[in-house]
Amino acid sequence: DLAGFTPPTAEQYLGFAREVIARFHQPGGRLRFVLSPSGPQRCTHDLLVGAHELAREIGTLFHIHVLESKSQVVAGEMEGRSLVRLMDDLGILSDHSALAHSIWINDEDIALMADRGASAIHNPISNQKLGSGIMPWRKLHAAGVNVALGADGTSTNDTPRMFDVLRSAAILHNLSTPDYSQWPSVHEVLHAATMGGARAAQLHREIGSIEVGKRADLVVLDTNSLNFTPLNDLRHQLIHCENGTSVRMVLVDGEVVVEDGRLTRVNEDDILGELRAAMPAFRDQPFQRAARRVVAALTGTIVLQIAAGSYVNAGETRQDREMRGC
Amino acid sequence: DLAGFTPPTAEQYLGFAREVIARFHQPGGRLRFVLSPSGPQRCTHDLLVGAHELAREIGTLFHIHVLESKSQVVAGEMEGRSLVRLMDDLGILSDHSALAHSIWINDEDIALMADRGASAIHNPISNQKLGSGIMPWRKLHAAGVNVALGADGTSTNDTPRMFDVLRSAAILHNLSTPDYSQWPSVHEVLHAATMGGARAAQLHREIGSIEVGKRADLVVLDTNSLNFTPLNDLRHQLIHCENGTSVRMVLVDGEVVVEDGRLTRVNEDDILGELRAAMPAFRDQPFQRAARRVVAALTGTIVLQIAAGSYVNAGETRQDREMRGC
Repeated sequence: DLAGFTPPTAEQYLGFAREVIARFHQPGGRLRFVLSPSGPQRCTHDLLVGAHELAREIGTLFHIHVLESKSQVVAGEMEGRSLVRLMDDLGILSDHSALAHSIWINDEDIALMADRGASAIHNPISNQKLGSGIMPWRKLHAAGVNVALGADGTSTNDTPRMFDVLRSAAILHNLSTPDYSQWPSVHEVLHAATMGGARAAQLHREIGSIEVGKRADLVVLDTNSLNFTPLNDLRHQLIHCENGTSVRMVLVDGEVVVEDGRLTRVNEDDILGELRAAMPAFRDQPFQRAARRVVAALTGTIVLQIAAGSYVNAGETRQDREMRGC
Repeated sequence: DLAGFTPPTAEQYLGFAREVIARFHQPGGRLRFVLSPSGPQRCTHDLLVGAHELAREIGTLFHIHVLESKSQVVAGEMEGRSLVRLMDDLGILSDHSALAHSIWINDEDIALMADRGASAIHNPISNQKLGSGIMPWRKLHAAGVNVALGADGTSTNDTPRMFDVLRSAAILHNLSTPDYSQWPSVHEVLHAATMGGARAAQLHREIGSIEVGKRADLVVLDTNSLNFTPLNDLRHQLIHCENGTSVRMVLVDGEVVVEDGRLTRVNEDDILGELRAAMPAFRDQPFQRAARRVVAALTGTIVLQIAAGSYVNAGETRQDREMRGC
């Protein structure tokens, strides 16, 4: 039962965003506001255009879920154009735009993204968990689109551990073709996890690589750990073996925030205790129960029907499909 | 250059195996001998039959890599029958047989495996790393074949961490169909990781479940850890969140072998040190360099050509293929 809830207008939402920015946004600091309407199909054009404008104005990111699912292909059909083309027509496909997922994009979408400097954010674990599909990694790279890695949040990736995401990105695409020269290289995966992410987040001038003048945002790993012993290839072992247990120190802008497995600025045990204490009330909220019913009804009928429909994503060939088995 | 190497005869190999069994095999103990010819296409029929007989004789496992790759489909064509059918014709497809991978099997193979009580071992991370394909999980379950989980060794899975394998098995198959009722359930994955594995290893009467009369082979996890906080669903979080960092204790037959993150019976630091020290000489062996050249030549030509050929595995439909994107 979602009755009684009236969605805010574009004007109301953007007014709220400006207020929060004025109070909390720290240009060049650690706390920054990001504009992230969930998907083009869920927002008015006014809101999309206003949010993109605001993102550019404060030099931050316009983040949006695009063509994660076949439902978004259908939403595009209802708009009479692909959602990527719609974004471009609205003037919101720019180098500030980061398109999460980018699975059911077509060749024209990819060319548009490359031309406008938009980023694609790859969430391989979430995409498997939800059965969304596989992002056309090689096509995006070949077109020169900036690719970043993401978790898509703990509701679908279950954890925010980026080492798991790196490994998944490095192996999932190998099922797409037997031609291993087309598989993601460790260099590409590592770049997506560092500079690709920094670029997508509009932070590439400050972080993403170790360079004079950039902030010391560093993860220090112990190569004497099990994951790097014996040491054969540093990058391969970082991506295929490491799971976070070799991390000895984390620095943000030169400040140590993790040391010897402990957070230095907050008491982790206290926070976990707070979460445990809050859980029963959270689970029992009437809204949670209602939301579960709505989601079950939607996925059991409409979404399942759309998913069963035939939509082919970029570059799909007979051999690609067959190689991936079943 | 592999000249000068003469493979042992079946008689020589089985004689060697009997000798090692007499010296080291402990029936009911911790150290047991397993018969594991690498693949039917690499062994004489005599060796296969003899090894299977020996496995049954000492009550242990007959482990073999079957239809992991399309090359094994071609090997079957050269034998005039599927490699699973060949195994059955030789009398080596039994409840002692564990078929690693089982990817390019057909419906008849699955029916045979179910009828003879053979196990399928699923190695989802290795299969992605090598671009091998996806095991038909649902078909095998529906036919009643015992399914176990494996790493396939650290040469292709890179680590022996089974928690990673559980998670990969739980999400990879979701790309095969939008019908989520067909996706692996957490119950199935957990069963494959415990009783399924025990059954495949011929240890199901001793371990695999917590029961009176079974050995206390236990992994004790701390549910106050990050991976289980807040606690929502124990099995889901075990499979989708846990990565080994919640492990507080491991017991084998009642004896504590891991406590507070440290092995109790060996000095891990010493062993890692030994591995580091041994690595340079290992890398520089002429055989290693020769093997790398042979592998590169094979994968670059013959294997790639076979992989590009069209073989469809069990249950493949248009929709399955399309759903998996590219």
